[in-house]
Order: sequence, then structure tokens, then C-alpha cells
Amino acid sequence: MCGIIGIVGKSEVAASLYDGLTVLQHRGQDAAGIATLDGSRLRLHKGPGLVRDVFDREHMLGLRGHAGIGHCRYPTAGAEGSTEAQPLYVNSPYGIALAHNGNLINTETLRREVYEDDRRHINTDSDSEILLNVFAHELQIQDRLTLAPDNIFKAIAGVHRRCVGGYAVVTLLLGCGIVAFRDRNGIRPLVLGERDTPEGKEYAVASESVAFDILGFRLLRDVEPGEAVLITFDGQLHSRQCAEAAVHAPCIFEYVYMARPDSMMEDVSVYKARLRMGERLAAKIRRLRPDHDIEAVIPIPDTSRTAASSLAQALGVPMREGFVKNRYIGRTFIMPGQGERVKSVRRKLNPIPLEFRKKAVLLVDDSIVRGTTSKQIIQMAREAGARKVYFASAAPPVRYPNIYGIDMPAAAELVAHGRSEAEIQDILGTDWLIYQDLDDLIAAVIDGNEELAEFDASCFTGQYVTGVEPTYLRELEFARSDEAKAQRRQVG
Amino acid sequence: MCGIIGIVGKSEVAASLYDGLTVLQHRGQDAAGIATLDGSRLRLHKGPGLVRDVFDREHMLGLRGHAGIGHCRYPTAGAEGSTEAQPLYVNSPYGIALAHNGNLINTETLRREVYEDDRRHINTDSDSEILLNVFAHELQIQDRLTLAPDNIFKAIAGVHRRCVGGYAVVTLLLGCGIVAFRDRNGIRPLVLGERDTPEGKEYAVASESVAFDILGFRLLRDVEPGEAVLITFDGQLHSRQCAEAAVHAPCIFEYVYMARPDSMMEDVSVYKARLRMGERLAAKIRRLRPDHDIEAVIPIPDTSRTAASSLAQALGVPMREGFVKNRYIGRTFIMPGQGERVKSVRRKLNPIPLEFRKKAVLLVDDSIVRGTTSKQIIQMAREAGARKVYFASAAPPVRYPNIYGIDMPAAAELVAHGRSEAEIQDILGTDWLIYQDLDDLIAAVIDGNEELAEFDASCFTGQYVTGVEPTYLRELEFARSDEAKAQRRQVG
Amino acid sequence: MCGIIGIVGKSEVAASLYDGLTVLQHRGQDAAGIATLDGSRLRLHKGPGLVRDVFDREHMLGLRGHAGIGHCRYPTAGAEGSTEAQPLYVNSPYGIALAHNGNLINTETLRREVYEDDRRHINTDSDSEILLNVFAHELQIQDRLTLAPDNIFKAIAGVHRRCVGGYAVVTLLLGCGIVAFRDRNGIRPLVLGERDTPEGKEYAVASESVAFDILGFRLLRDVEPGEAVLITFDGQLHSRQCAEAAVHAPCIFEYVYMARPDSMMEDVSVYKARLRMGERLAAKIRRLRPDHDIEAVIPIPDTSRTAASSLAQALGVPMREGFVKNRYIGRTFIMPGQGERVKSVRRKLNPIPLEFRKKAVLLVDDSIVRGTTSKQIIQMAREAGARKVYFASAAPPVRYPNIYGIDMPAAAELVAHGRSEAEIQDILGTDWLIYQDLDDLIAAVIDGNEELAEFDASCFTGQYVTGVEPTYLRELEFARSDEAKAQRRQVG
Amino acid sequence: MCGIIGIVGKSEVAASLYDGLTVLQHRGQDAAGIATLDGSRLRLHKGPGLVRDVFDREHMLGLRGHAGIGHCRYPTAGAEGSTEAQPLYVNSPYGIALAHNGNLINTETLRREVYEDDRRHINTDSDSEILLNVFAHELQIQDRLTLAPDNIFKAIAGVHRRCVGGYAVVTLLLGCGIVAFRDRNGIRPLVLGERDTPEGKEYAVASESVAFDILGFRLLRDVEPGEAVLITFDGQLHSRQCAEAAVHAPCIFEYVYMARPDSMMEDVSVYKARLRMGERLAAKIRRLRPDHDIEAVIPIPDTSRTAASSLAQALGVPMREGFVKNRYIGRTFIMPGQGERVKSVRRKLNPIPLEFRKKAVLLVDDSIVRGTTSKQIIQMAREAGARKVYFASAAPPVRYPNIYGIDMPAAAELVAHGRSEAEIQDILGTDWLIYQDLDDLIAAVIDGNEELAEFDASCFTGQYVTGVEPTYLRELEFARSDEAKAQRRQVG
Repeated sequence: MCGIIGIVGKSEVAASLYDGLTVLQHRGQDAAGIATLDGSRLRLHKGPGLVRDVFDREHMLGLRGHAGIGHCRYPTAGAEGSTEAQPLYVNSPYGIALAHNGNLINTETLRREVYEDDRRHINTDSDSEILLNVFAHELQIQDRLTLAPDNIFKAIAGVHRRCVGGYAVVTLLLGCGIVAFRDRNGIRPLVLGERDTPEGKEYAVASESVAFDILGFRLLRDVEPGEAVLITFDGQLHSRQCAEAAVHAPCIFEYVYMARPDSMMEDVSVYKARLRMGERLAAKIRRLRPDHDIEAVIPIPDTSRTAASSLAQALGVPMREGFVKNRYIGRTFIMPGQGERVKSVRRKLNPIPLEFRKKAVLLVDDSIVRGTTSKQIIQMAREAGARKVYFASAAPPVRYPNIYGIDMPAAAELVAHGRSEAEIQDILGTDWLIYQDLDDLIAAVIDGNEELAEFDASCFTGQYVTGVEPTYLRELEFARSDEAKAQRRQVG
Repeated sequence: MCGIIGIVGKSEVAASLYDGLTVLQHRGQDAAGIATLDGSRLRLHKGPGLVRDVFDREHMLGLRGHAGIGHCRYPTAGAEGSTEAQPLYVNSPYGIALAHNGNLINTETLRREVYEDDRRHINTDSDSEILLNVFAHELQIQDRLTLAPDNIFKAIAGVHRRCVGGYAVVTLLLGCGIVAFRDRNGIRPLVLGERDTPEGKEYAVASESVAFDILGFRLLRDVEPGEAVLITFDGQLHSRQCAEAAVHAPCIFEYVYMARPDSMMEDVSVYKARLRMGERLAAKIRRLRPDHDIEAVIPIPDTSRTAASSLAQALGVPMREGFVKNRYIGRTFIMPGQGERVKSVRRKLNPIPLEFRKKAVLLVDDSIVRGTTSKQIIQMAREAGARKVYFASAAPPVRYPNIYGIDMPAAAELVAHGRSEAEIQDILGTDWLIYQDLDDLIAAVIDGNEELAEFDASCFTGQYVTGVEPTYLRELEFARSDEAKAQRRQVG
Repeated sequence: MCGIIGIVGKSEVAASLYDGLTVLQHRGQDAAGIATLDGSRLRLHKGPGLVRDVFDREHMLGLRGHAGIGHCRYPTAGAEGSTEAQPLYVNSPYGIALAHNGNLINTETLRREVYEDDRRHINTDSDSEILLNVFAHELQIQDRLTLAPDNIFKAIAGVHRRCVGGYAVVTLLLGCGIVAFRDRNGIRPLVLGERDTPEGKEYAVASESVAFDILGFRLLRDVEPGEAVLITFDGQLHSRQCAEAAVHAPCIFEYVYMARPDSMMEDVSVYKARLRMGERLAAKIRRLRPDHDIEAVIPIPDTSRTAASSLAQALGVPMREGFVKNRYIGRTFIMPGQGERVKSVRRKLNPIPLEFRKKAVLLVDDSIVRGTTSKQIIQMAREAGARKVYFASAAPPVRYPNIYGIDMPAAAELVAHGRSEAEIQDILGTDWLIYQDLDDLIAAVIDGNEELAEFDASCFTGQYVTGVEPTYLRELEFARSDEAKAQRRQVG
Repeated sequence: MCGIIGIVGKSEVAASLYDGLTVLQHRGQDAAGIATLDGSRLRLHKGPGLVRDVFDREHMLGLRGHAGIGHCRYPTAGAEGSTEAQPLYVNSPYGIALAHNGNLINTETLRREVYEDDRRHINTDSDSEILLNVFAHELQIQDRLTLAPDNIFKAIAGVHRRCVGGYAVVTLLLGCGIVAFRDRNGIRPLVLGERDTPEGKEYAVASESVAFDILGFRLLRDVEPGEAVLITFDGQLHSRQCAEAAVHAPCIFEYVYMARPDSMMEDVSVYKARLRMGERLAAKIRRLRPDHDIEAVIPIPDTSRTAASSLAQALGVPMREGFVKNRYIGRTFIMPGQGERVKSVRRKLNPIPLEFRKKAVLLVDDSIVRGTTSKQIIQMAREAGARKVYFASAAPPVRYPNIYGIDMPAAAELVAHGRSEAEIQDILGTDWLIYQDLDDLIAAVIDGNEELAEFDASCFTGQYVTGVEPTYLRELEFARSDEAKAQRRQVG
């Protein structure tokens, strides 16, 4: 995942982009970057690490200008270190800087086209670099010295025709303005906001509305699937639907795990959606075991806390903070002659034994991916003295890879891949494993916006809304395997 | 505040010291350091910043040895930047490295004695440097080439005779072992633990028992007030009461705010104590307003969450996470031609308006110090649509400075200093302000260990268990004032 | 000035590029960079500082590949910090990395053409970025997916038609090879070399032949003015004359000051040329004052030592090292309440008084530019006790700006601009000022290669071989003035 | 070797210490440090690297004060990285910072005494740390709260009684002043200077007088062997002979190689001494081969240039700069799959073939230590076309280790150790090897100051003026061997 933001303001924007990125930082802690327009010059600073570590005072002073874009990165398929931080830049045509959240799945085709038809060199494995060059080519063939909104929207229509996948994109187009667009299924999120200043109205786009909250922008609306938004440097807002009609299928994992609870996404409060996930889980528990003996609901911090609280309330059982999160985790040093002495989950969580001793506890997590951590946590709960350890997941079993930009391991490494719930329960070593039903999960979100109907829930169902080539999945399976990752680390 | 740790192990200890410091990091994020004994050499690395930023692989490999001490620092009186990170070291006599949590209040006298009687130069304002040199002098006058435990305990008795204040200390004494001791009133915490390894028993001391949890040590007991513990490098444990009898008065603020909830301190679970604080607050609320209209209890994250949850449960009102904490706060950049645009509290917290709209909410914090943040939070709750905003503090009004090592502003800057609760309620702009009663706070802690009777609660009462010179308080008042801090920053 | 190098090898080339740049470092200490071709990927690392500081082991390991180019930079007109280090890169068409030594003088026209005709964004003031984009455009209009040598040479012919100035360029052209070319007057130097390895022949180009010496390449020849050389990645050497015939006019300042003495340039040994400069100076001295009283010849280290030695020998007077150069000069720190206490020339040179006391000495420098340093040195010689201080310059009076890539101040800041030799002698405070005659300087060089006839000697004559617009000179005059430099520093 | 400096001024001294260290940098490029007295506080900054890299503006501003000392380090016996940079500091008694040039040879005894008698911990292998603690102990036993000059001189007398070796020392003694002293044989150099300022007279001590030249101090005199100089913080100069009479035997290697030519040392101009070395070599050459066929004298830059110039003049043969020194040498990178491709001497020197072709050349170096470089240079001269390659050394054969602070390899690694000149000539591959005779070398120095009679010339003679235990030499032999160095590198 990544976080993106773009602002066309009436005065300096770098500090606002910076502040916005800090509240989007949960979407990617790997690298960060900001590009601004300073007169006719592009100013760009980016680097590996957290926003607060990438930018110092001198960098910020260099990022002059009233318009700019920002990015924080979480690496997706095929990229440990080899990928550059974003925004990316090409100087031809016009000069374009681009920041991207999502993933393209027809990169092999695009890579060939970009080279053979457009003679553009792609220097990394990054799909963002491909996307930038596709956009650049579509602008190039407009063959205009000065771009009108119409030319830009035509170019974006070309991007949508060629690119398959989930993507939310913000670009700074020199001589023109900030252009943002979203894939035709609206898989990745993108919102539009405005702020009134004495000098006039300012517009912004961002991955999540929390970025607007901290900056004092009002959330206007979500950018529509396939829609493009152009904010010219003089502050005019243009927008147009640039893609053929397609099913609107936002990524349901944003609600489960990725988004901040205080975000509004597709008019749904993420926080409320999570409360409803807890309530629906509670209903399922009562349905399955009306006489359950759960004495305490214990969230695995931090994401699952919201769902756990409503679940506990609905069950009429107290919620207790049985695990304390270690917020200052450091690196794991193996000293000469010693193996690792501390279990990895122990670095992250510490149990409060009093909350477990002799109790039947229900642990709640937002989802179960590999299962390794869940297994260790369950064991930790037992060692802390729990009489019974139940485990609830606010999401259904994760059985298939995500190909639209959420980083997940290869299918073979998902504990639920090809396994029944009973088998998973055995592997995790819990006394009872409760998964949310997919219908319940969907209902929990839709309850906030009845106009929503479909979601990208492919990691639960294996159904990909854009279609996907089997060869792509096979290659992905290898690229994301632990084996491949280990190889890349050795080489890099 | 600071965190300290010491281990005498059977194999390399640097990684354990590092891991231990990461879970003590909440006690001080300003600087960190580790000293180990490598044969007859002291290895020392320290620097400004978080544990994870101070140590890299090369530093860790240099910190060879089976015994060592560690420290993480939070600056106290009179020290922005000018103080060195700890452990501190003197080479005469024997070679001594020392790490300290707490504060001495007779530093002027000690500073003069150390120079005039002992001819030792003190190069900083740090009371830790004074304490180290007092200890060094007391060892020097033992006049022995090889120290026996008896000599060491005599030297520590000398330290207790001369030093007034709250202090928990761990030292690495070359040629001897690790020596830890605690002030005669037991104001600052210190616990003792052990771990069995194939090579034999290992001992450790630390500020809090959470450090033992992550390392797999068993908590044996608290070090007694005035007691000293010597763990020789060959693994023998010696201990002795080295101070005259005095009232046992642990710092009650550890339970309110400082300590991690998963720590055991004086045989009291901090987590349980906080739950009891919430219950007693609830009882007071029901007593004062049996017909209160509170619709939701909303904690100010993170510390107050525990008390808020039991308070909500006892009131029979739902607890809701109305504020989301920004975990990646960056620096505040003021761009040319612009003032600060984002309110400082907005950088830390973002409200979820749905939890406030048209409701009567009870915000809960662990304590109220300056009151500025509380005031902004209350205003933020109103702007989010709350009908009524009540505010509860799990601790009584903070009216006096802390002089035993907890960093607090000058008395004049405490909102409760010289003000009634009604006046404070007005200043904060809340519809109802509820403070915990001191008796209730004490009872909430004592319920966990009936043998406890007294506490250092001086910031609530102005009564200092060690006695204190009025001149000291006057100088402190200036040194901690915002004005003095601004001056120091300019100079430094 | 800058130094450039390019190698197509049979095995890894990064270490050779690095070593080559270290011996070209005298041409530019401001920044350094290397780009290599790793399969189909461009690897690039560059940064501010000396070669030895810019590259560490990890960077070098990343610069995989059998072909690559390198650059070390000395900033020219209009560029403190704002210019990027080189090589520069554009990804369209094909992917091109470029490194450049020299200066274009029709940048305003080119900048407009590049934007209006080619829609390419130029983001800095650097003429190298313009040159790269001109080349990119000329390749683009070849409109071929795969480039043949013929296409490349046509593109370079286009570059020569459009670009006016002095330039030696090396580019890495993805999918093709390394391409190097030189302006039609051959103002900036470029040499071609080869090395035999067990795997086959390797070719290289570089600014100076010393780079070949350290790497074990044989110097084949200078690249001809207007000629382009293509070394394909499979090791084939192609070359073609790509410019219309023009006078061959290498920069004479390379021989005076810029080049290393151990370089061969246009078949002339720089060292021998400097010896001849000394001899011709000696002849002039004897001609003007057959009965001179010079007792010692003292070079201003380091460049003038060669000319001084032959001068001394020809005069029959001993050469003495009267000045010792401080090789570890640090920054100039002004402490609070203090002005600068050490004269700037004193930081660079220390006199050995014994060599001056009561003597008539002839100081020798390669040239006199601003005159400020010469004046201080003359005064220092007097203070060291010299009876008479004469001063000889191995070059004629520098009266006009250099516009082909040698960094010099604005004309108004040249001590010889608009002044007679008598006036300059007064300003410098020397007892006798002897300038080399231009004819002698030219003869000193031509003696090594009778085929040379013309030189760019514009800073002595004001005659520019390429022609130049008066407006260009006026703008340059401002851009290079100390005033403009101070402004840039404030802003940047 | 190391460089030391100390100043008691009337205003801020940090910038002067910095500038002074930059011109002493040739004595040690490994690390640098400065300590100043700021009121009653010691300010200290030090680190690895060149002076210009160790100190930035912020460090300099922190080094407040009117008195201070500085050091630049070249590692001696037993120390790759393990030794700390200097000044070193102990806080008891009084607070003492110390910087040291030289080497103690009874460190084993001293180390034991310091621990057993003084109970002071020595944490490194550095003899400077021992020396500091011996001095600290001698001050401690003065048993005075306030030190009078008499106490200090008594303490230094104690140091001289206990310490054997060559040492020049400068210390900053808190509450007192700057104290400098020199071993009783005066092996290591130390000079005293003064500067008049409007606020009064300032005094300084330094390793070499060049530090005074750059700072505008007048050289007063050398500090006498065994003498101590105290400059109190109020500017009073005290001095006293503190050692028993002993032969005055300055290190002759200072004149041969170490010192800067522009230094005055024991009233002898180093530059003049080197000129005389060349003249005496010339005399020997003419004596041995009146009909020699030398056509050019070629110095190995930089140190030998002075001697080579007088040698050439005396022989009536031209001196030519046949080798150009590479001044920007970088690191040696070995790329995967490749061995080192460039000969190590080629990284340092490049020949100008025209100066060698078909000529009989005499190469001149200051001395021959291992012989490896000389051998490669001779071979390089042959490859450059020399008909005959003769080689002259301005110093006699180096056959024994230096134990007084000049870093040299173990005896076994000296090419002249146990070999006749004929054998060495064979190994080096020169056509004729001419060594300076020791008597000539001594005469070349004494000619500048007839009062000098003896020198430490032990690396030529094996005679150590202080006496030395055979066990010390044996241990040294191992510690300096390449094998031991390799081991240390692996461990460290």
C-alpha cells in the first residue's frame, strides 16, 4: 500500500503535504517523497524511511511552491529496495511527476509496448514507472504545445484503456496543474477536498480523508471510479469520467485493516464499519454457541480494538487490554555464538497475565494472513494461564493473493489457502476459531452506504474484478514467496 | 524519567540489554546507552535518540561481554542537550560506569563537597555525574586494592548518608560486578530478576518488570528502599540494607502515568491499579450525580484507556475510541511567509465526529498538568458536535512540582497551582470537571498490596518525604519555567 | 571545468571508472558520478564532493556492468548548488545518460527550442541538461526502434548544427553503446584509448590521457574536432566526422593551468609545453633586463613549478621552494566576537623566510586572474625579508571571460581587464611584473605538434572562435559577478 | 606521530587551535580533537578523520573559551581503531585533559603501578591514557585543594621519574592552566611562542613552529628537554626544569621526513637541513663515482624534493619532476570476479615518460623503509624507458624499529634489516643504490645549530638513548608485524 496526496494552494504547500503524509504514514513506512512546482521548476525530495526522517528543514525550504504532490511507500510485488521512492519524474513531454497507490497486473504487456511503440526506457521493476510512461506517451501523442483540459482527459482515457489493475494516481503536470485519477473499478481509494483561504479556494486530493482533517480541508467527495480530476495551477477544478463504465468494487481490505478508523471512504465511516464487524461477529458467536463461556474479549492491538469493543459489548462480556504493544521495537541483533533468544511475537506484544489466568478468553484480530503470529499469540495466552483460548477474525479466511496493491505473501504461505476452518483451527492451536462470514463483512460496510454493492474481496474469493491471466498469478506466486524474497535480499 | 537495566549473564548480554531498553523506552526517548565489561575493558556506546537509532550492528558487536548496564534518558531539571547520555564513567578508582533514574535535591552541597573534599571535577549540570563521583569517592576511601562486598556496601551507605532525593542506580564496577541500589524511601522503582540458562543462573535489575518479561527473566522481588544488590561477575548475588530506616514512599505517579500497564511494581499490577482508578472515579461520579447523562466514555489515548474502560463499565456506559492518535508525528515546519497552520493538538489526535455528534461525552485522561492540551481537546470535542463535554482525571489536581525525577513544568505553569477545581473547570472550558480524590488514588494502588501505606504524592500535596530546602524549590521554579527553557535553547 | 570518462569493457568497469575519475579530479572537485549499464538497467550513483567521498563499497557493488561513464564537476556559469551532479539521465527515447565538459553559449535559444519544438522540460540552469535534451530530440526524430551507427551519427550532426560552444561529451545510450563527441573547434579535450584483455579489446574515452595511464590503456589518439566515436556494447569501434569543417582551436588554458602535466593533449606533452613556457619567459627576461639581479626563482606551488624550474635553469639562477603549501586547509570559522584573524593566503601558503631574506626573488605563477592572491603573496614575500620581489606569469594578461567551460570571474573582476601592465604592476605591488607574450605561449605549445596552428586564447584576446552574441557576454558578466554569487548563496 | 598544540589566549581560541591543527595535520591524519575551558567547564570534541572533517560549525561554537589544547593523531604501537582520539580526560583530581605525541616504552610496569598503587583503570592499549593517569596520580598525591606552580612541577618531576620513552605533552589542568612538558632527552619536539594582542600577551606551545606562523605567534624557543611550561589561565608563564640531566637527543627522523620544511626545530631550519642532506649526498656520489653518468635527478614527491634540488644543483645535473603525484587517491575497490588491476604505486605516482626515455636517472627519496614502494618505483622508471635507474636515500639504511613514536613496521619487515647495501640494491632492482652516511646526516642537521651533538638515530643504529628492555622489543616486533595487524583488523 501507499499513501498519496496532492494540493494546489494559494501559498506555500510543502508543510501541508508533509503534515498530510504523516497521517497517511500508516499506508506505507518504507519511503517518502514530495514534489512541488516552484515557478517553472520542479522541486523534488525523497528518500527511504519515515516522513519525519526523510525531510529536514533544508529540504523543506527547497520545496518551494504553491502546488505539489506527496507519497509514502509500502513496497508491493517484486521490490525490496530496488524500487525508487516516489514521486517519479520524466521530463518529456512537458515534465511530469507522479505518485501512485496500487498495482498494475498487465505490466509485461505494457513494458513491451512502452519500449517498442514509445521507445521509452523503464529502468526498474516498478509498475509506477510503467504507469508514468504510459501517461507520458498518451500526453505526447496529443501533440500540443499547450495542453487544454480536454487533451489531458483524453490522455487519461488512453491510460485507462491500456492499464489493468487497481490504481489511484496523482501527478504534477508542468505548465498545467495537478491531475488525479482512479482506476475504473475504483479499487484504490481517492478523495477530493477543499479549503477556503483569504486568497481563495484551495483543492486537494488524498488517499484518505484523515489527511484533510489535519489540514482543515473539507471532504467534498470520493473521486469516482474512472474519473479524472484536474486542478489547474490557477486553482480551477475540472473533472471528467474518462473510463468506460465498469462495476464499482472498492477494496474491502481498506475497511478491515488498511485505512485509519477516522477516515471516511466511499461515504462509509471506517470506524463505524469496524464496529459493525464486531457486532456481526458477536451475532455469529451467539448463533453458533448460545451458551458460550467467554469471560473476556481481548483485542490484538491496535487495529482490531474497534471491532473487539463492539463485539464485547454485544456479547455482554468485558473487553480487556490483555496485550500491551511494544511501541519502540528495535532491530533483532544476533550476537556471536547466540541464536535469537526472544520470540518474534514477544518483541511486539507483552501479555498481562492477570487478564488470562484461569479465564476463557476470546482473542480478536482484524484478519489472519500467514497465521504464524496468531499461533504464537494463542500460545502466549495459554502460557499466561488462560483456561480456554478462542480466536476471532473480523475478516473471512484469506485464501488468495491480493493483486491490487495490498502486500500479502504468496498463496502457498497463507494459512487458509486450501484449508478448511477446522484445519486452520488445528494449526493455530486455538480452542475455537471464528471467522467473519463474507456476507457479514460486506453488510458491515454497506450498512454505511447503501449505494455500494460490490467490493474487491478477491483475497477471500479468488474472483478478480478486472480479470487476470493465470501466468500473472503464477509469476506473482513465485515473486512473493519467502524463497524469492530471500534471493533478492542476497543479491541486492 | 529514565529507564535503567543491568545484567550479569553467562554469555553475551548486549542484545538483552538492547531488547530490555526498548521496552523501557517509554521512560525516556531522549538518549540511550549501554556499557559492558569485555575482559578487563569497559565497552561503552551511547548517543541521542531512540534505542533503535542509537545502536547499529557494529556498535552491538563492539559491546562484547557477559555483564553490562543500560540506560534510556528523559531530561529532568536543568538540561536541554547539555547533559551527556548515560552510562557515565570515571576511571578512578577501579573504573565505574553508572546509570541513574531519579533526581538529587541537595546537589549544590554535594557539588561543593565533591570538589573541595574529593578534588573531583564535575563537568555538567547533571546530578547523575555528582552521584557517580560521590560513589567513586566513597569507594576511594575504602582504600582497598580489591573490593569485598562489605567495602561496597559501606560505600553505598556513605552515598545514602550524603545524597538526598529519589534515585535508582545501577553501576558496573570493574574488577567486581554490577551494583544496584535505591534511595532510602524507595521513591524510584527497581526490580530484581533471575533467569536459568544451561550455563547457570543469570541475574538482572531493571526499572520495571516488563524488561524481564521480554527477556524471559522471572521477577524475584523489588529491591528494597535503601537496599543495595551486588551481582559479582562470577554470578553471586549479595544484598544488604545500607540505609537507616525511613518511610517507604514509592512515587504514585508511576501508577498514574509513567509505568507500563504490564509492569508489576511493589507487588502491584499497574494495570489493575489503573482499572481500580477508573472504578473509583465511577463511584465518585455516581455519588455526585446519580442521574448523570453521560452517553459515552472516551479515553484520551493511550495511557488513560485502562482507567476509562473500567470507568465506562462501572457506569454502564459504552466506551468509544473517539480520538485516533497520530503515531507518526513529524516536526513542525513553518514555511516562509506562513505561521503555523495546524493546531498542535491536531497533530497528535484526530476526532471521529460520529462519536461526538449530539452526545454528552466524558473524556478521560490520566492527569492534567499544564491544562493546555486538555483545553484544546475539549474544544475539539465540541467542534466535533458534542452536546456536553465532561472531563475526568484519574489523578487529583497536580499543584506542586515533582522533585524526584519526573519531568514537570514549574508550579506557576500547572493549571491547578493555586486554583480551585471550579476555576480549573472554567479555564479548561468543560461542562464538568471530575478529579480523582487522593484517598481514592492511594486506595486504588494499595488494594494491590496491603503492606504499602505511604507514597510520594508530593505533586498533589506539596509534602516532600525527604524534606527540601525552600531555596531549592525557588531555583527549580526558575529552571523549569518556559522562559528559562527558551533561554537555554538560544544559548545551546 | 569537468572531467569525463567512458569505458566499454569485457568485465566490470565501475572500479576502473572510479580510478580514472580520481586522476581527473583536478578538473573538478565539486561533485562526481558514475553510470553503468547492468543488463538492460542503468545504474547511477552521484553526489556532491570528491570521488573518494561520493562512493562507498555499497555504491560500487550496485554499479554493476561492463560499460559505463563517469564525471567530476567544477561548476561553471550560473550554478552554485542548483545544478545536479552528472551523469544526467532521460528515459525517452531509449534511455540516455550523459556527462559533459564544456559550456554552450546559445542556451537561451536552445532552451526555447527544446521546450517549444520538443516539449521537453528543462529543470535546471545547467547547459548539460539542455545538451542532453537536444541530443535526445535528435535521436527521437530518427524514429527507429533500433538504432544503427548511422542514425546516431546523424543525431550528433544535428547536435553540432544546433549547439554553439565548447563541449566534450560522453553518453551511455541504452540498447546501443557509449557515444562520445567533441565540438567542431575541438575546444575541449577528449582522447581515445584501448586496452587488451584476455577477453578481448576494451575501449575508453577520457578528458585526459592520465586516466589511461592509471588504467593501463594505450592512448590511441585525440578524438577529432566534430568527430563522434561510438563503442557498441559488444566492443566495436565506429567513428565519423559529424560536423562541418571548422578551425581547430583547442583551449590554450589547458596547457597553462588546467591539465595535469603528465597528460598528452593534441599530441603535445603538457609538461614539455610548460618547460618551454619557462624557457621563453627566461628569454624575455634576459631580453628586457640582461643585467637582472634575480637571486632565486620561487614557484607558487603547485602548477607553476614546471615552468619555474626551466625558467630558473635557463636564467642560471637556483630555484627554491620558498613557499610551502598547506595541504589540509580546513574551513574558515569566525568565532563569536572575532573577525577573521588569518589572512586567506596564509591558510594556503607559508613562506620559508630563509629563502627570502635580503634576496631579490622572482616569484612565478602560471597566470594572474583576479590578482588578489598574487598581491598578498608578493606582500608575504616582502614581509619574509625579500629585498626585491619580481613576479612572472607563464601566461599573458587575462583580460576577458572564458565562455567555453573554464570557470573565471566576471571581466570587471579580472585585474588585467582594461589595464596596462604598468597599472597591474602597481596594483600587485611588485617591483617588476613580467607576463609571457601570447606568441611565446602559443609557440611553447606548438613546438610539441607543428600541425597545431590556432587556439582558443579568448581570455587573452577577447576573440571567440565560435562567435558570440554581445547579450550573452553581458548576462554572463552579471551571472559571474561576486554580487550575483552572493545573491545566489543567500537564496539557495 | 601526532601533532599537539595548546593556547592560553585573551579571547576565543577554538578557531586558532583548529587552524593550528590543519598545519600540523601532516603529523597525523587519523583523528583529531580539541578541548577548551569554558568558565569552569571542559568542552571537548574529537573524532576520527581529518581536522576539516571532524569539526563543523556547531562543534566549533560549542568549544567556547580562552584556553584550550588540540591533537591530531597518527596511530603508533598496538592500535588500529581501538585507541580513542585525543585529548583524553579524567575528572579526578581537578579535571585534566591531555594530548600527547610520542611513545612510552615501560608501559607494562606503569600499567601495573597505575592499577595497583593508584587504583586507576586503564581502558585502552594507549600509552597516552597511562601517561595521563600517571600525571593524575602525581597531582593527587600533592594533596592540595588549590595547586601552586610548585605542586605542578613536582608532579611532572614524578612523571619523568616514572615514564621512560619519548614524549611531548600538553595538558589542560582545570582551575590552573595549560601545562606542557617534554621528555628528558628531548626526543619529541615542542616549541613555545607568544602573540601580542590589544588585550595582552598570549602564549602557545606546539609540535612545530609552522603552527605559530599561520597564527601570527612569534617562536620564542624550544621547550627544553625535561622542562615543563605552565601558562596559567590569567596568562602568566612559568617554567622549570623538572628532570634529572640527560643527554639531549632529538629525533633525527623529524628532519629527514616528519617535520614540515618550513618548521624551525631546535633552532635548525628543517628546509635548510634537507638542502644540506642533498649536498652531502652529492658529495658522496662524486666521491664514489667522479665520472657518474647521471643525466637527471628525479625526486619522489613530495618530501624528497628539497634534498633532490640541492643534490641536482651540486651535481650540476637538471632536476626534473618525472613523477606526478595523484593527490586525490580514493579507496581500492575489488569488484566481484576481479582482482586488483592497478598496482598500488600507480595509484600514488604517474611517470612522465619523456623524462625517463633513454636517460640515466637518479631517483631520490627521503628514506627507504620496507622497500616495496621503492622497488615498484624503480621498475616504473625502467618501464618509462630509463637507460639506467639509480636510487639515492637522503637517510642511512633503516634497520631497527623506532620506539619513540614514529610509526614503522617490525624490524623483520624493514628491507635493510640484517642486509648489506649490496643485498638491498639487488632486492630493489636499482643499478646503483646510494645511502646517506649517518655522519653526513647528523652533520647536515648540526650545521644549523652547533650546540646539538646527539640525536635519537636508533632506527639506523639500534642504540636507544633511554635504554630498552629486550622483552619490549620482542613484543613490539610482534605487535607491529603485518600478521598482528591483520589479526587486529579481523577482530576489531
